[in-house]
Amino acid sequence: MNPAPPLRVELGPRSYDIRFHHEAPAAVAADIAGFVPERAMVIAGATPWRIHGKRYGSALRDAGVDFDLAEVPDGEIHKTFSTAGALLGRMIEARHGRRACVIAFGGGVVGDLAGFVAAMYLRGVDCVQVPTTVVAMVDSAVGGKTGVDHPLGKNLVGAFHQPKLVAVDSALLGTLDDHNLRGGFAEVAKYGVIADAAFFEWLERDIERALALDDEAIAHVIRTSCAIKARVVADDERESEGGTRATLNFGHTFAHAIEAAMEYGETQMHGQAVAMGMCCAADLAADLGLCDATVPARIEALLTRAGLPTTLPAEPAASMAAERLYDIMGRDKKARSGRVRFILPRTMGMVEMIADIPPQKVHAAIRRRQRG
Amino acid sequence: MNPAPPLRVELGPRSYDIRFHHEAPAAVAADIAGFVPERAMVIAGATPWRIHGKRYGSALRDAGVDFDLAEVPDGEIHKTFSTAGALLGRMIEARHGRRACVIAFGGGVVGDLAGFVAAMYLRGVDCVQVPTTVVAMVDSAVGGKTGVDHPLGKNLVGAFHQPKLVAVDSALLGTLDDHNLRGGFAEVAKYGVIADAAFFEWLERDIERALALDDEAIAHVIRTSCAIKARVVADDERESEGGTRATLNFGHTFAHAIEAAMEYGETQMHGQAVAMGMCCAADLAADLGLCDATVPARIEALLTRAGLPTTLPAEPAASMAAERLYDIMGRDKKARSGRVRFILPRTMGMVEMIADIPPQKVHAAIRRRQRG
Repeated sequence: MNPAPPLRVELGPRSYDIRFHHEAPAAVAADIAGFVPERAMVIAGATPWRIHGKRYGSALRDAGVDFDLAEVPDGEIHKTFSTAGALLGRMIEARHGRRACVIAFGGGVVGDLAGFVAAMYLRGVDCVQVPTTVVAMVDSAVGGKTGVDHPLGKNLVGAFHQPKLVAVDSALLGTLDDHNLRGGFAEVAKYGVIADAAFFEWLERDIERALALDDEAIAHVIRTSCAIKARVVADDERESEGGTRATLNFGHTFAHAIEAAMEYGETQMHGQAVAMGMCCAADLAADLGLCDATVPARIEALLTRAGLPTTLPAEPAASMAAERLYDIMGRDKKARSGRVRFILPRTMGMVEMIADIPPQKVHAAIRRRQRG
Repeated sequence: MNPAPPLRVELGPRSYDIRFHHEAPAAVAADIAGFVPERAMVIAGATPWRIHGKRYGSALRDAGVDFDLAEVPDGEIHKTFSTAGALLGRMIEARHGRRACVIAFGGGVVGDLAGFVAAMYLRGVDCVQVPTTVVAMVDSAVGGKTGVDHPLGKNLVGAFHQPKLVAVDSALLGTLDDHNLRGGFAEVAKYGVIADAAFFEWLERDIERALALDDEAIAHVIRTSCAIKARVVADDERESEGGTRATLNFGHTFAHAIEAAMEYGETQMHGQAVAMGMCCAADLAADLGLCDATVPARIEALLTRAGLPTTLPAEPAASMAAERLYDIMGRDKKARSGRVRFILPRTMGMVEMIADIPPQKVHAAIRRRQRG
């Protein structure tokens, strides 16, 4: 199978390619080598590097890339300011220069961390993203949002720092655990809902093939998702007030509250929370008369086929109380970015930002997704 | 005396004013209030806030500015990644939003730290600089370079993040200690050497009046220096390869090596090191036939009148050995930004970047400035 042609993220002087490969470390390494004038710092997730590091390390060396390596332990609990500081220390000690290139090899946590380190090192060096999970390939590696979490909230500290290249090798997904693989499909389904009804229909026909990592199907999923993300980012790089980038948050206002209530640091279920959140948001939209009832029904059916949860966790029941989740949303959003706002579907493939929804309506949407 | 008219730093969408006042907390606070739509975080140096915080705090409150306060202990040893992390934690705990404004009230250390915190918080919030030292007023508060030090080098981690406003009250210099005040005049003299022969001549006539903080003289010094800095920054915001911003490093290649050899963290003598460094660089230029001998002579004479050192520290003699200082320059520059390059005067008011100078010439320039 021929690899898909590259996509361009159009951002003027910060434009870059997303390049697609399948089972091709040498091709990925050759792509990367073009962005490493001197020496690279590979920042890799412990698990992906344990599985793929030998092959990818050799491929990079064969392509003439001289690199140092820093591994990041698995888990979002390591996506912290102090981990970023330790990684910066490694780069300083290894005497990387202004022409250094950071290569992020891993999932969303590693990509966000490594991108942030690249943004800060010597006030900004180049970064290449090599995503190894579905979420990273279709979402976090593209768009330049980098950062770290704080016990009081996710991504509260960071930078906008676009990569110079995103190099996708879909074969890396072959070793992903099932939970992580399925979680990524929540973001994939999201793209259909917010921007592409035809893609949603494709998923309704072929999601099983994609989940089974059929080469052609997964390549289509990744490329279509990246194309939507690239378009949104090109249109609204820094998530301006009222800009389109906010549409990417469909399902995420609910999801962030669910994750916070679950103590997200421990759970690693971002995709699963997004699935629940999309169901809540779609229910809310239907209840408000913004869309007809087929929209939440189709979303729920697709997510169910992807093995994703469409109801809230049963335990701890108290922490998932509607009022509590709504309070978390308000605390987070009111304090940091104004009023609680939701991205809600109008029809399949089209969403809108809605503010000032009566709290009871939000409570009801949550309750409808509580089990039992 | 009427305050000088504001200067504009022309950077397209990132343009901003430098506004000048004298003994006018209310006017400064009114300027700032225009940039605080919600709540501000004042990050203040411990000493300037102890001396001026009561008046400035009242003025801010009277201008309707609601603010939290974080104090930073004196000294460059606190300009670290972990101090930045603690300040970010303070902002998160105080639930500042995207419309937060960081107000830096202090010298260069505080301005660099606070600017960096503003750059990272929620991926970037607004920042206003209120410099309280000569160096901060004429140099570090203008231009958007923010960052922190590492034991292996200064400013190795940071961001370009332009302020929204620089509000200068020259009366704040009245409480500065003598060492700090004189140190700032090294950077002032630098502007004359690199860009403005007439300003250098003005200093040759009137530096004593400026050092005595005569209102008119110090206002002229600050405004002229800021005008040069603003012009250079507008021309080359991010210190591009071969760009004019590098000319601001006149004297600094030597100075950084001297500071590193002295263990800069403990000494607080940046201006003093720059004075020594400018003498070395001017000697080197004359020795290479780039300028005539009057240039180093005039620089040395002016710095001497400012009470600044023009020879290297006598102790520890070994650490100031020419070969050792040259090694430090090479280690730093070679590793991080290519070859060792010097900004050297051609005539008063004009400098040039020169690379590939024979090491023996650099050694000789250092030896000429060793005492005894």
